Amino acid sequence: MDVRLIPQGEFRRVRAAPVGEHDRLALLAEMCRFNALSMVKRAGSGHLGSSFSAMDIVAWLYFKELNTFSAGIQSPDRDIYFSSKGHDVPGLYAVLFAGGVLTRDQVLKLRRLGGLDGHPEVQVPGIEANSGSLGMGISKGKGMVWAKRALSHRGRVFVLVGDGELQEGQNYEALTTAAAQRIGDLTVIVDHNKAQTDKLVCEIIDLGDLEEKFRSFGWNVWRCAGHSFPALEQAYAARRAAAGKPGIIIADTVKGRGVSFMEHTSPESWRDGVYRWHSGAPDDETFSRASDEILARVAELFRRNGLGEPEVELVSGERAQTLGGVPKEYVAEAYGDALVAAGERRRDLVVLDGDLAADCRIRKFAERFPERFIENGIAEQDMVSMAGGLARSGLLPVVNSFASFLAARANEQIYNNATEGTKIIYACHFGGLIPAGPGKSHQSVRDISLFGALPNCTIIQPGNPEETRRALDYLVDQSDGVGVLRLAIGPSPRKIDLPRDYAFAPGRGTALTRGGDTVLFAYGPVMLHEALVAAETLAQDGAGLTVVNFPWLNRIDRDWVARLVSAFSTICVLEDHGPVGGLADRLLEELVGAGLLEGRRFRRFAVEGYPVCGAPGEVLRHHGLEGSVLAARIRGAAVHRTTADDRAYTLEAPQ
Amino acid sequence: MDVRLIPQGEFRRVRAAPVGEHDRLALLAEMCRFNALSMVKRAGSGHLGSSFSAMDIVAWLYFKELNTFSAGIQSPDRDIYFSSKGHDVPGLYAVLFAGGVLTRDQVLKLRRLGGLDGHPEVQVPGIEANSGSLGMGISKGKGMVWAKRALSHRGRVFVLVGDGELQEGQNYEALTTAAAQRIGDLTVIVDHNKAQTDKLVCEIIDLGDLEEKFRSFGWNVWRCAGHSFPALEQAYAARRAAAGKPGIIIADTVKGRGVSFMEHTSPESWRDGVYRWHSGAPDDETFSRASDEILARVAELFRRNGLGEPEVELVSGERAQTLGGVPKEYVAEAYGDALVAAGERRRDLVVLDGDLAADCRIRKFAERFPERFIENGIAEQDMVSMAGGLARSGLLPVVNSFASFLAARANEQIYNNATEGTKIIYACHFGGLIPAGPGKSHQSVRDISLFGALPNCTIIQPGNPEETRRALDYLVDQSDGVGVLRLAIGPSPRKIDLPRDYAFAPGRGTALTRGGDTVLFAYGPVMLHEALVAAETLAQDGAGLTVVNFPWLNRIDRDWVARLVSAFSTICVLEDHGPVGGLADRLLEELVGAGLLEGRRFRRFAVEGYPVCGAPGEVLRHHGLEGSVLAARIRGAAVHRTTADDRAYTLEAPQ
Repeated sequence: MDVRLIPQGEFRRVRAAPVGEHDRLALLAEMCRFNALSMVKRAGSGHLGSSFSAMDIVAWLYFKELNTFSAGIQSPDRDIYFSSKGHDVPGLYAVLFAGGVLTRDQVLKLRRLGGLDGHPEVQVPGIEANSGSLGMGISKGKGMVWAKRALSHRGRVFVLVGDGELQEGQNYEALTTAAAQRIGDLTVIVDHNKAQTDKLVCEIIDLGDLEEKFRSFGWNVWRCAGHSFPALEQAYAARRAAAGKPGIIIADTVKGRGVSFMEHTSPESWRDGVYRWHSGAPDDETFSRASDEILARVAELFRRNGLGEPEVELVSGERAQTLGGVPKEYVAEAYGDALVAAGERRRDLVVLDGDLAADCRIRKFAERFPERFIENGIAEQDMVSMAGGLARSGLLPVVNSFASFLAARANEQIYNNATEGTKIIYACHFGGLIPAGPGKSHQSVRDISLFGALPNCTIIQPGNPEETRRALDYLVDQSDGVGVLRLAIGPSPRKIDLPRDYAFAPGRGTALTRGGDTVLFAYGPVMLHEALVAAETLAQDGAGLTVVNFPWLNRIDRDWVARLVSAFSTICVLEDHGPVGGLADRLLEELVGAGLLEGRRFRRFAVEGYPVCGAPGEVLRHHGLEGSVLAARIRGAAVHRTTADDRAYTLEAPQ
Repeated sequence: MDVRLIPQGEFRRVRAAPVGEHDRLALLAEMCRFNALSMVKRAGSGHLGSSFSAMDIVAWLYFKELNTFSAGIQSPDRDIYFSSKGHDVPGLYAVLFAGGVLTRDQVLKLRRLGGLDGHPEVQVPGIEANSGSLGMGISKGKGMVWAKRALSHRGRVFVLVGDGELQEGQNYEALTTAAAQRIGDLTVIVDHNKAQTDKLVCEIIDLGDLEEKFRSFGWNVWRCAGHSFPALEQAYAARRAAAGKPGIIIADTVKGRGVSFMEHTSPESWRDGVYRWHSGAPDDETFSRASDEILARVAELFRRNGLGEPEVELVSGERAQTLGGVPKEYVAEAYGDALVAAGERRRDLVVLDGDLAADCRIRKFAERFPERFIENGIAEQDMVSMAGGLARSGLLPVVNSFASFLAARANEQIYNNATEGTKIIYACHFGGLIPAGPGKSHQSVRDISLFGALPNCTIIQPGNPEETRRALDYLVDQSDGVGVLRLAIGPSPRKIDLPRDYAFAPGRGTALTRGGDTVLFAYGPVMLHEALVAAETLAQDGAGLTVVNFPWLNRIDRDWVARLVSAFSTICVLEDHGPVGGLADRLLEELVGAGLLEGRRFRRFAVEGYPVCGAPGEVLRHHGLEGSVLAARIRGAAVHRTTADDRAYTLEAPQ
């Protein structure tokens, strides 16, 4: 649908008009809210709750407190602001647009290739730090303050953190070292909006008395109402009076602030006990209500200050690309159901969650077996080591988080558990390139490599719901040691049908298409779809392609693979992962070890470079992994890799 | 030299004798101190400072507070104790020996293959958790308490943490979640000995008011004198009165307690500003002084309590194996010198340390450029993200820690920095299998795989001092993005001579020996030595072997490698790493991609399974990587892999 945008000219007009300061700030903040909402609607996804809770704080900073706009975003003496949680970036983009740093074209391309990333990305003008993985901001801010002093640059550093984010232990490392290292003018602002991904912070993992906690780490602490400009003014004045030492401002805010039915204090903002507006775009009708509500306040403020009517531009809608077009199925849903079934069967099975229960589809388990569901908040390391203690005591823990967080943040803890020889299952959600809207903090294309060197580890990525159930059952009932279930989080682009007689056996896959002298190994619904598109494309050309669904990412049955490859001259692997450390490395080792590569070609198609942000199709094409591009690459013609555009793949004759 | 051991019978005698309780505990603790000292001396390495500071606490627990000895170490209703820091395990072994859990044979095999690991390892009777990587203990303890409740088992859980260890953020995750998850009878004891690896905690990263800090996380806190049994008794009584809720006892202790010149409060225990007894065994004369001092106190307590003279057994000395026998050189020393030189050249170079400055040889830099040296304490995640902020601000950070901690604990932070496209150098010390005494928490055989999937990463492991300098210079002056310098920490087993005309060029190695139809790629001083031994062995048999020093772990020059391998029928890689994710995977990809494998064999020799603990030679032999075993494996004869003994390699006719 069409969305409305308040153009940059209106921001210039408000900033220049003879208006009281608090009214001006309120107006600018509301205008930014309005644009942020439109951006998220247009993108089809994004985080409104957090963008809105932080909106007044960020508007205050850029339009009042910081010299960033006046000094220029390239000035070494500029004040630096960034958000550690990062997912509130639509609000920041709206402010950078208002300040003339971002263009209209850019804000209309949120979460699109070549546009604005779903989480902060330093390639975007005005963005100071990559974030989206939580808990790193204070540490980074420390480095920036230290560097300013070392390089004799002026300017202060402000880091926004979320309250849920304060469950990450790294924050406390940074709070401790900042005091000891005599870091100077670092200001941390807590967007204390009381709600995290699914639920209230106090329901997930309560933080206790934040002021007392921060003071115990030797920091100056101020607290203020985060949506009141007089209160913000007072807090910053107090903070400036204590300049030169690290300080924290706790700003009490409301998640979803500014749209009545999105505010976490409104019952309307909750469904089935879960806050609805942490992420995701509203449907058309809901968007209109929200947009109208904000615009009414903007118009009222315009009128009250003699500014006439606000100008609003209608931007024609653009349908966000989605993968495929058929009825959706979710491997994640199948996982959630299979987990409940496993829980019925195994009384020793315990499920751990890192504040992603809805996304990981484990709410069903939590409701069915509340006494065997452990909510651990955003503290992956603690969750993993706690699972280690459970496993040592004879229980079977199933640990849930996103692959990029679990495999990386808790890697040493996973290793430590693994050395104890206990059995633990890590359910790694959001494995792979797609969805690509959140950007590279979330797109997990390294996780196979991060588990791969554990000697007693089995990594499986299922391609459809039935295989998901079998994979979970295998890890629960049959395998030992570390079990990794890698799961796509989004809808499958198509239903993947497996042969009726498919035996789910370690190290063996199954052919989904037959034909040609090339076999392509693929796994997971996203890449299996692209592989099948490639096969269909090649079949039209009469070439043919045998696509093998191969869910075992580090187990290969030598006899099976020997029989399989005997008919082919070229063996390809399509990774939903980077080129290093995925299935291709293991398959190549096996093929060479068994002498199966003599006289055959081996090729790998993988996510090269860092994963780009965008809609699924454009991102797959960019990485040369979209089915038709893949077909052309397999044919070995009509495709080249451009060097100018960050490793993008293009077809010579675009299709 | 010979060491003395107080036999188990004497412990039984003291435990049964009609002696006042505090005297009995003092006696048992001193006897354990005596034995722990002998164990470390015999092992040739170990952590005395921390074993001694925790000794009275651990003795109190096992001989007074816990039901572990009486219920039995297998009882599900036993009380559980473990040390999160882990390196104090010699003291715990001494207690387990005293309690009859460990045998005389076992305690005489500290840090030897088939004996007692250098850090806690659950395969050892009485050890409840693997530790040695810091900061995981409270989380694990939480899991154990949760499991006891879920399984209706009796028994409490006690976790000892170090004070330096409290710099790790995971502790604060666990403190937060334990309160919120209503974890019951978990007791954390802080061995507050005031000194960490190199210096006083307050000099490294001060912890502030610990009591206030813990209370702010909602825990009950008690404080006591950790070497006073009346004080310990009082603290535990108070703790029991508040049973059912998590509680912390801060025990004020002295590092090195019990040997006058090892106590951190004694000026004698410091040299060049560094505490001398964090790790390492004393020399013969120092050992004798320490041993005599403790034994005198034991004898006095025996006499005072009418127990006669303590029986002490003389255990004949066993010379700890070392690698090679020639004058030592250290790549780490060369790194320290080269870093100072780089600092002279580059004013933007900043060095970060995670409380391992002496081991990482960066004290020289700290002394030369104190204004560009950042001490970050034991907080790897914070250190890495701080480096990210420094790099974003135009500085060149060189981040130092042990490979196993840096690559794993801070993996997500390293990724986040890498996505910003800045340049950061990670100096990963203690890379590889050797020294094997500390055990698998420290032996780093996964780190190459943990960096490997970063697209903009260059990983180098130099083989000798000259190559170390060139590698550092290359990373400082020439490469972009993520630079990883992987370094052996111990002495090189032999001087590795490189050809005079050796050009240190990306992706190119150099042959150290010539001969035969097999080429063996190796890197780092430890494995280059074994490769050269293998070559010497094969040369004696007239077979010959070409050993190539190849420091580039993920960069291969295709033309160079094509020329090199043309003369050989077999290409082998010797990894100082696990078989997955190391150089072999990359070399295989390149060889196959370039069509260089046709008609050739490819073999990898790597650390299979988890690295075992022991003296260098026995560990290398166990893993089939000792030079003569390697030669036999290359010959493809006379070697088989036993299945009974955890993947050990043996020669059919032992040599």
